[in-house]
Amino acid sequence: MNNKIRVGIVGYGNLGKGVELSLAQNPDFQLEAIFTRRNPDKLLSASKMVHISEIMNYKDKIDVMILCGGSATDLPQQAPEIAEMFNTVDSFDTHAKIPEYFNRLDEVTKNAGTIGLISVGWDPGLFSLNRLLGEVVLPSGKDYTFWGRGVSQGHSDAIRRVEGVKDGVQYTVPIESAIDMVRTGKNIELSTKEKHERVCYVVPEVAADLDDIKSKIKYMPNYFEEYDTTVNFITEEELKTNHKGMPHGGFVIRTGVTGEGTNQRMEFSLKLDSNPEFTSSVLVAYARAVYRLHKEGQTGARTVLDIPFSYLSPKSGAELRKELL
Amino acid sequence: MNNKIRVGIVGYGNLGKGVELSLAQNPDFQLEAIFTRRNPDKLLSASKMVHISEIMNYKDKIDVMILCGGSATDLPQQAPEIAEMFNTVDSFDTHAKIPEYFNRLDEVTKNAGTIGLISVGWDPGLFSLNRLLGEVVLPSGKDYTFWGRGVSQGHSDAIRRVEGVKDGVQYTVPIESAIDMVRTGKNIELSTKEKHERVCYVVPEVAADLDDIKSKIKYMPNYFEEYDTTVNFITEEELKTNHKGMPHGGFVIRTGVTGEGTNQRMEFSLKLDSNPEFTSSVLVAYARAVYRLHKEGQTGARTVLDIPFSYLSPKSGAELRKELL
Repeated sequence: MNNKIRVGIVGYGNLGKGVELSLAQNPDFQLEAIFTRRNPDKLLSASKMVHISEIMNYKDKIDVMILCGGSATDLPQQAPEIAEMFNTVDSFDTHAKIPEYFNRLDEVTKNAGTIGLISVGWDPGLFSLNRLLGEVVLPSGKDYTFWGRGVSQGHSDAIRRVEGVKDGVQYTVPIESAIDMVRTGKNIELSTKEKHERVCYVVPEVAADLDDIKSKIKYMPNYFEEYDTTVNFITEEELKTNHKGMPHGGFVIRTGVTGEGTNQRMEFSLKLDSNPEFTSSVLVAYARAVYRLHKEGQTGARTVLDIPFSYLSPKSGAELRKELL
Repeated sequence: MNNKIRVGIVGYGNLGKGVELSLAQNPDFQLEAIFTRRNPDKLLSASKMVHISEIMNYKDKIDVMILCGGSATDLPQQAPEIAEMFNTVDSFDTHAKIPEYFNRLDEVTKNAGTIGLISVGWDPGLFSLNRLLGEVVLPSGKDYTFWGRGVSQGHSDAIRRVEGVKDGVQYTVPIESAIDMVRTGKNIELSTKEKHERVCYVVPEVAADLDDIKSKIKYMPNYFEEYDTTVNFITEEELKTNHKGMPHGGFVIRTGVTGEGTNQRMEFSLKLDSNPEFTSSVLVAYARAVYRLHKEGQTGARTVLDIPFSYLSPKSGAELRKELL
């Protein structure tokens, strides 16, 4: 008898590939199939590749679908459709649209008798958990989220659209002195631009005007204008060698006072050499929770804030209390 | 109509006083009474003080009892008795005895129809949550817990028992170079003594033999012998001025690999100017969860690992998703 949690992956980009790798580290899961919009025969993987149009044939063969599409268009369209047939977990990360997305999935999953766990990853995700924890434990306080050092896809795209730029990468970097200031517990106000600087590595086209590129990037409204921005010119080889990883991370710091002005500080931080591989690992752990909630007969949409940590582990409650508490 | 969560505090030492202060920061609670074994008339507090023998008279007046006794003798005796009448939350912290304590309270609370949430604080507590999170997100990895810089009550007591010592305080201090080594992600093995040093501040009796005191402390078996221990002699005034606080804190660091050897790191840390006030604040947040679980009709023993973070907040699910996710 097979007691493994049977999962499917929808989407085979960086995140889907990360989930495939993460499942190999978690022996209580079995990957049944990866669903893709592309021609499945042309994708290189040892896993079973299936065209997305055949997903309904897996209705009784898969316990949880791990949705690895993007938040802009893929998830808002796919998740409600797939959640009619399957329990799902996804990493929807458009913060402003989470309430709307949640409500839509909640309706679908309640009707279908499934679970839809949304916005799993590190922000939203583990960072959200720590923001909540900070607020409840130190209600007289303030929290600060810093992102980076990490690649911002949106800002890298913006650089690449500048005339004369052949390729480029942008790192969001938390300002060390701002972190230090926050840690003193003085509850200062800091805007995003006071907490982060932007560092760009740019490969120029042959004979491009470097000063012009620099100024076009530095004064680009919305993206760079308000920030302290550094532009470094490098060769194509350097970009390939040193800037093709997807590192990221950041800090959630809560400072507050208890009693009669006693300073207290909580801090959670991540240093990730691969942002998508880490997010994938979080998705897999939460897929375990989805499986259990569904087994208990629960239905509806959920977020990480609704899930007890014990549901993330393959260990029993007694084991966890003995080993980890 | 009063919609507040009505709580009682059992025990009025550092922890009980901390809970009293913390409740003042959380307007959705109402402190009904503080229960003590001492003569309630002789205790200084603006709150209502009641002798512990009258606790049963509050059966329908209190939603959650916050137990602030010690783990050695108070809680193992009090908790099962009180949990027969009230929902409880406590900070039982004798790690090795948690399974036994849990099972005992589980039986009592299931029979009584109450909730008994145990081992709430930061270790066990928030540190346990982070150890679990590290293990599930980075299963190929290793976690490290460092404690300090903070006062160890047991080691301070041991110092004070040495001949010629008038008073003294012992700080457990994490070794900076060990933290740095752990952060590199090399998954090294480190024993407790390789992670911590012990720093003592000792007030000697008049004309005491300082060398003798120093050597008696440094070579004291179990407590100091295996550690790198520093003994500083100070005056009684210095001790009073600089060492009467109860700071503590520490780090839970998880390093691991995803995919094909990609390094990832998670870190949670606390820097507390008052250990008991922080623990009290955690207790109060979790008292909110106890109230809700009981309202849902749940019964039995629980630990922090079983509680969704959303249960810790006075905000609704929709508010949390909008503001914190």
